[in-house]
Amino acid sequence: MAPLKVTFLGPAASFSHQAAVETFGSSVELIPCLSFADAIAAVQNGGADYAIVPFENSTNGSVVQTLDLLVDRNDDYSDVKVCSEYYLTVHHCLLARKGLFPAGQRDYSSITKLYTHPQAWGQCEKFLAEHFRGVERQDVSSTSKAGETVLDTTAEVNAAIASGFAGQHYGLDILEENIEDAASNTTRFLVLRNVKSNYQTHFNPESDGQSIAQKQPLAVPKTEKTLISFMVPQNTLGTLADALLIFKDYGMNLTSISTRPSQLQAWKYVFLVESETDQNKEVVPEIMNSLRKATENCKHLGTWANRLVTT
Amino acid sequence: MAPLKVTFLGPAASFSHQAAVETFGSSVELIPCLSFADAIAAVQNGGADYAIVPFENSTNGSVVQTLDLLVDRNDDYSDVKVCSEYYLTVHHCLLARKGLFPAGQRDYSSITKLYTHPQAWGQCEKFLAEHFRGVERQDVSSTSKAGETVLDTTAEVNAAIASGFAGQHYGLDILEENIEDAASNTTRFLVLRNVKSNYQTHFNPESDGQSIAQKQPLAVPKTEKTLISFMVPQNTLGTLADALLIFKDYGMNLTSISTRPSQLQAWKYVFLVESETDQNKEVVPEIMNSLRKATENCKHLGTWANRLVTT
Repeated sequence: MAPLKVTFLGPAASFSHQAAVETFGSSVELIPCLSFADAIAAVQNGGADYAIVPFENSTNGSVVQTLDLLVDRNDDYSDVKVCSEYYLTVHHCLLARKGLFPAGQRDYSSITKLYTHPQAWGQCEKFLAEHFRGVERQDVSSTSKAGETVLDTTAEVNAAIASGFAGQHYGLDILEENIEDAASNTTRFLVLRNVKSNYQTHFNPESDGQSIAQKQPLAVPKTEKTLISFMVPQNTLGTLADALLIFKDYGMNLTSISTRPSQLQAWKYVFLVESETDQNKEVVPEIMNSLRKATENCKHLGTWANRLVTT
Repeated sequence: MAPLKVTFLGPAASFSHQAAVETFGSSVELIPCLSFADAIAAVQNGGADYAIVPFENSTNGSVVQTLDLLVDRNDDYSDVKVCSEYYLTVHHCLLARKGLFPAGQRDYSSITKLYTHPQAWGQCEKFLAEHFRGVERQDVSSTSKAGETVLDTTAEVNAAIASGFAGQHYGLDILEENIEDAASNTTRFLVLRNVKSNYQTHFNPESDGQSIAQKQPLAVPKTEKTLISFMVPQNTLGTLADALLIFKDYGMNLTSISTRPSQLQAWKYVFLVESETDQNKEVVPEIMNSLRKATENCKHLGTWANRLVTT
């Protein structure tokens, strides 16, 4: 039997790569993609069985590219639903070419340029404000790419912010470890599958993912999360409040709410509301019925087991 | 008398620069900054009188760096409030070095790399999907920087996505105009001032800004917008819905809601709620009283005249 195919945002050594390995283990075929859209399109068109994409970071918030693909304004990915989630603890390091700084030297004033993914700046603000105020920041497409860029750009004194894993991958010196603002800096990934795929019958990331089973025991009490998107009529007094009350009426606790432009009309928004309960199977159909009357273009984007370990 | 000082996110020829010129005219001193934080800190510490920062784009949504500075988790900018807004229509162009493509040639398959600000990818998705699927994308710190990078990086066949203004600034060829997805692609800027500054008495962007007065007549009926931030106790059923009902109870229409991580505790959020009415002066103090009882760390971030022209 051919191995399962799982897409993620490349290149190799990215955090998405790490999350894919930890979720699906080593027996699957991991396929790096150039964009989130490519990763999800492969699941829709049958080129892959699963995609794993970042949804939000505990310090820096939503990953808007993922939100927009889930909103799916043109119904390009109508068979793709969320089936699981994975929490990856993110640690950032300051990386430089081998030997650029003697071991133990912590004066980085000669560094004129820093490279990383836009999300990472926000995750390391305190460290950057202390050591690199006013230093030029160059956005690159991934933290892994930042490591590769620093390795290749030898005409300047520079550094990358990326994982220790990426540092090892590119043979860079790790100048500083754990430079993220919040020690518990965590990225939540969503696992997406095609609801029409046959593979759902012989792979269940909730039980078969070796690392999930080992590292992320289910929270107790066991609950499920449900993600629903909808729009409200523009300039309609209090409609959003009324829609959220529907969740409350059915005993669903709101766990996140995100706003994106509808792209149908300027300043009209689509909302993604995630809620949690131990009775999803019973109440989700009823909530959907009520929301469809109160909102526009209401979609159920998936229901899956809550994997947030409460401490 | 020394001219007013206004900060914005540089470099020259950025959209923020354009918004600053159109809001404040040519008689003020415009100060480009390396980050939004630097632009706002200058207003707090008296180094500048006003800052102008992007708040949201009609296609691509919130500018999260601005949201985080407004949330002001460490009370670094407690004297800085929103005092006005400005709507800038954004047009993107595809730019390349002079003569790289003969006039009229529309085969861009030799281009191997594109440069722009992360926000701009999302604003040009349809054009990019049609002409540049799979082509490497390099994030840079501003659209203007993208133009500069393409000018300087001659070892590859590349192109930038930036304004026509930036194209002229750097002497690039404009290969395509208006490549944005939405013809009405508009960025809303907020004007920030220091509430303790004396300058508020002799400059009023609502009436003195020459371009505002010419280009953006006040919407009729005249309303005001108010921005308020708060947190809700974590995992408290329906508290957000209850908080939004307070706005409804006072007749305030919700015009936007944004969510950011609290950075106090993972998966606890701070909400920024913007609402609109013609009676702000009367109801804002009452709403603040009610919200302070129902939420945590509730802050009034400013009240200003609505400048959205309804068509």
